[in-house]
Order: sequence, then structure tokens, then C-alpha cells
Amino acid sequence: MKIDGQPFRTIWLKEDDSTIVQIIDQRQLPHEFVIKELTTVDEVARAIREMWVRGAPLIGATAAFGMYIACLEAKNNPNPDTYIHTAAKKLLSTRPTAVNLRWAIDKQLEVITSQKNIYQKIEFAQQNALQLVEEDVECCREIGLFGLSIIETISSNLNGATVNILTHCNAGWLACIDWGTATSPIYQAFDKGIDLHVWVDETRPRNQGSRITAWELGKHGIPHTVITDNAGGLLMQQKKVDLCLVGTDRTTRTGDVANKIGTYLKALAAFDNEIPFYVALPSSTIDWTIENGQDIPIEIRSEEEVTHIRGLLNGNIEKVLIAPKNSKALNLAFDVTPGRLITGLITERGICEASEKGLISLFPESAKT
Amino acid sequence: MKIDGQPFRTIWLKEDDSTIVQIIDQRQLPHEFVIKELTTVDEVARAIREMWVRGAPLIGATAAFGMYIACLEAKNNPNPDTYIHTAAKKLLSTRPTAVNLRWAIDKQLEVITSQKNIYQKIEFAQQNALQLVEEDVECCREIGLFGLSIIETISSNLNGATVNILTHCNAGWLACIDWGTATSPIYQAFDKGIDLHVWVDETRPRNQGSRITAWELGKHGIPHTVITDNAGGLLMQQKKVDLCLVGTDRTTRTGDVANKIGTYLKALAAFDNEIPFYVALPSSTIDWTIENGQDIPIEIRSEEEVTHIRGLLNGNIEKVLIAPKNSKALNLAFDVTPGRLITGLITERGICEASEKGLISLFPESAKT
Repeated sequence: MKIDGQPFRTIWLKEDDSTIVQIIDQRQLPHEFVIKELTTVDEVARAIREMWVRGAPLIGATAAFGMYIACLEAKNNPNPDTYIHTAAKKLLSTRPTAVNLRWAIDKQLEVITSQKNIYQKIEFAQQNALQLVEEDVECCREIGLFGLSIIETISSNLNGATVNILTHCNAGWLACIDWGTATSPIYQAFDKGIDLHVWVDETRPRNQGSRITAWELGKHGIPHTVITDNAGGLLMQQKKVDLCLVGTDRTTRTGDVANKIGTYLKALAAFDNEIPFYVALPSSTIDWTIENGQDIPIEIRSEEEVTHIRGLLNGNIEKVLIAPKNSKALNLAFDVTPGRLITGLITERGICEASEKGLISLFPESAKT
Repeated sequence: MKIDGQPFRTIWLKEDDSTIVQIIDQRQLPHEFVIKELTTVDEVARAIREMWVRGAPLIGATAAFGMYIACLEAKNNPNPDTYIHTAAKKLLSTRPTAVNLRWAIDKQLEVITSQKNIYQKIEFAQQNALQLVEEDVECCREIGLFGLSIIETISSNLNGATVNILTHCNAGWLACIDWGTATSPIYQAFDKGIDLHVWVDETRPRNQGSRITAWELGKHGIPHTVITDNAGGLLMQQKKVDLCLVGTDRTTRTGDVANKIGTYLKALAAFDNEIPFYVALPSSTIDWTIENGQDIPIEIRSEEEVTHIRGLLNGNIEKVLIAPKNSKALNLAFDVTPGRLITGLITERGICEASEKGLISLFPESAKT
């Protein structure tokens, strides 16, 4: 998507030196836009571990490029294969629970070990990383095309008046390579000239909405307004929301959806006010082994993300304490929205009901035999 | 309630000099506990205007003491009546929309003007302010006694296991004189030895939950945990909430409740998970003229409360920017929870259904004739 008119992705090979990986350092957003160069496996590992990059698809892509850099480094090593496997372990340990990370590293290892010659290993690792990136971009683009049809219909029902879309957290291009998932329909509708406006939930505690989503929408030129997580219910009661559009980390085979904490509350409000509530997802995030959303384990993160917050003060990013110093806090990362509250799931194969029947209609290969 | 073991109220006359009003300066909470002395009408006006004190009952009480101080000052003025009326106007202008402010000033003017002698004016104004304060304390105590019965029943159903109570915003003693409204049943249950724990919604954007409620519960010794506003839905799904208990700014005659933004989302989640949701209120906040909650005007406050936040950094309270500098924000202060989602209203006269029939059963004098 665009940043002040210039097209960007979240990760790419440097134009005049393809041994260097470039990324957007997302830690300083929205206050500073910084591009970082990654030239060693250690730098790639640090970028993943310290969340310079974030979002499952982008973490996977970064690790894939990390394996490419591992091959470059292995060239001058007496035991290139050992070096590459050690690098794989190092990269894998950066975010142990990130499913995409393991998937991308395994895919790279398969390609790399199938080549004998180190120069071929380098070449194939580079090609494979680039291909992985293109596949993610294409998947997000397709989700966006299907989601676009929903926005077009609402716009037409409103006779072209502004379509107000509410989103939670960041399922945007900065979590992927380009387009994003929940934001892909929004970018495509905007680029087609549809009049729209986005309500951006700030998404406490990490504020991915107000920090990241608001920034990326603003830089692409999309009209948006930041609201507290508390405000969406009232806006829906006041009929100031025409569509809710969110992403997800994991979807069960029955259509329950785990997404950033607070999503369930917005789905309840949308249901109570008869406002369509759609979830956008690449099919790679469907967990066909889980029947009931309540069985999805919920990550508990550090208390400090609730009791402290980072913000800009006199040009520096500072962390301030916002709760009593002796109060405990609990930081639950995700909640589960039952399929019964979801109008539809938007995948790269089309839109379906949030149920096993709906999902199997798009993914018949996953039917139980 | 207690602060580190010592009983406190939010406002009182100084023990050895009854011409001085003392208050807790709530601006620095939870980081600093500061007691301020108010000795002139200008100081009282500033304390109300700059929110050293907050909460409708406390604002009213502060203004009442302000009128008492006006009488003290008028003693040395050639035109005491003119001085007192000018002071009333000054106090009234501090928070123009605060209904309690006008009510308290009018009550004092009535008492003061009924006395000819300035010494009697002073004496009656002081007595009247103290009486107004005692009436608020008694009202909150009664609300607490009725609410206590709900907590006792839940505790008994749980065979004495911990009762988990979720609250939103601050309907605590710091908004009143003592006890609070939603917190009064909690303090009374805790003081009776009932095992309980409170989930405190942080309540963005002004964080009255994590700043004020968490502080006052903690200082009284009540087990509590701060959570983001997003977390309550998941906790209810996980059956980790036994009771929701909130306050309100205004209740319609049909039992719809305007309270701090986000209350409606918690009521939806409680309803979806069959968890009792009670609203505590003094009957003075029932607006018998409004039939439908959607007719309650919603205050829009400054964007800055959403885009910035205050917190402690190196011992100082600083305000940091937490959103993109060019993003707009919308700051809606209240939402409306329809009576259909509310299990019951707890008033100083008892508990009733959140409906016109329910309210009239407790307040038959307000029935339409």
C-alpha cells in the first residue's frame, strides 16, 4: 500500500544489493517511520524477537529471508549445512508459538537441503522466499476482492453515501506483506473510488488499532477516526456503523474465531443492532482440528502492557505508568467470537457462513471422511 | 472508606479550624495522595472547575461548602447579600452541565437568604452543607445494604468461594462522600468478611477504573485486578465473573441507563453469558421526564483524551501522545444500556426491575396520573 503516495511493502530485497533485506521497523510507529536493513541471521532473529516486524505472515516471510541470509553466510563457512541448521534453530527460537515461523523455516529447509551446491542453495532460498511473499500478497488480494463485493453492495444500498466500517486491532498490510486481510477490501474499495470511512478501535492494551491501523490507513489517504474500544457499541446503536470487518489468528472448523481481545464484544453489539460482522482470513489460519472455539488456548501476556503505555513526549517515545503501582493486572491476548455472531467468513476462495458446513463448502478437501 | 487503615471521606471541615474545607485532590491519583485545603470561594471554584473533585454528589457537596465559605467571606463585606449571590454565580459557572451543582447551590441560597443575620447565615450554611453530606452518605449506605443481599446470595450459592465482581468506571466513594454507589455493596460485603474479588475495567479514555476505582479498592484492602475494557467478555465466557455492578449518570423512567461509554458492551456480554448485571443509583439521578434511553443526549468530549494519556514517568505525571499525530479521534462520553439487558436497579429504597413498572413500584409518587 502507499505511504504518502509511494507504494511500499513490509519486507523486500534492497534494490541495488539483493544480499540485504529491508523492513519497516514497526516499533516506532506511528511516531516515526524507520526502514531497517538486515544483513545477518542475528539481525533477522533480533528483528523477529524484538517485534521490529509483527503479524503471522510477515514473521513467516522475515524468517524465510533469514534462511536466505543464512545460506549467504554459510558460503564462507567450512560446514555450510551445520551452519544453516543452526541458523534455522536460532530463527525458530525467536517466537516459539508463531506457527507461521516454523512453517516458513521448514519450507526453506526443504528447498535448501534439496540442493547440493551452496550457490544453488542461495539461489533457491532467495527464490523461495520471494515466492512465499508473492503468495501471501496474492492471497490477501483475493480476500480483498471478495470483501470488496460486500462493501460495493452496502455502498449501493446507501446510494453512494459514506460506508462506515468498524475494525479492531491491526489486520492490515503491516501485519502481512501488502493489502492485509481485514483491510484488503477497504483498500480495494477506496482505490475504486467508493466513499468510505473507518472507525479504528484503539485496541488496548497494545493499541495496534490506534498505533498501526490508523497510521497505515492515514498514510494511504483513507478517512478514519480513532475511537476507544468502549465506543463501538454506541456508534452501532446510533447506526453510524454499516459494516464490521476484522481479522483473526485462528478459526475453528465450526467457524468460531479467535482474534484480539475485545472482538467478541463488538460482535455482540453488531448482532444486537443487526449490523453485518465479517471476519477476513487466509485459509492457512483455519485449524481443522478444533471443533469448539472455547478449546482454543488463550495467551496471557505481561501485566506491564496493561499498567504501562508507550507514547511520544517531547520527541522521545517514553513508557508511563497508568495504574496504581500496587494493583495487579491481567492481560488476556485473545477472545473467541462464536460463529453464531458472525455474518460471514471472507477467505481467498470466497465468502461462506461461519460454520462447518460453510467452511466445507469452500474447502471440501477438509471434510471428515 | 479506609486509606491504608485510616477512615476517610472525600470532603470534610478541618478538625481544629471549621472555617477550612479539606478535600482529597483527585488529579494526582493513583500516583500521589494529596489533601488540599480550601479557604476561599475562588479556591473552591477552582477545585470544581479543574476537577480536583469529581462525581456528581461530591461536586454538589463541594459547592455547598463553597457557599458556606462565601458566607464567611461576606461577613467582612459591606454588601454581604450581593457578595453571596455573586459567589453562587461563580460556583455555578464552574461546571455548567452538572445538575447536582445547581441543586446544591440553590438549596444553600434558600437557607442563607432565609436568615437575616450574617452569623446565622454562616451557621445555617455550615449545618446545611454538613447535612447534605450526611444525606449522601446515608443514601449510598442504603444502596449498599440492598446490594449486599445480592452478593450474599451469590456467595452462598458458591458455598463461600470467591465472588468475582466486574465493575466499569468509578462509581466509588471518591465520586461521592463515602461508600460510593456501585462500590457500596462491595465495601459492605468485604467488611462483613465475604470472600470477593473485583475485576476493574480500566475505562478508556479517562481511565477512571484503573486510576480511581483500583486505587480506592486497593487502599481499603479489597482484592482486585485491573483489566482492559476489551477483556470482560472473555472473562464472562470463561465464567470468571459472577456479577456485574456499575453506576449510572442518568436513568430513564423506563429503566434505560446512561453510564460511562462501554457499559452497554459489558451488559451485552453479561446477557449472552447469563451473568447478573445490576446498576446502582441514588433515585435523584432518575430522569422521570425521559421515556427512551436513546433520547438522552451524549456528551462529546475532547479528542485529546483519546489521542493522549497521562501517566507517571520518573516521578512526574506526564502526558504522552499515543495515536498518529494526524489521525482524528472521537470521544463519546456515555452510552445507553437498554433496560432489557439489566437484571435489576439497586436504589436507596430497594431493588427493582429495570422498567417503568419496576421503578414505579419503588417510587409510586412518580406514577403518571
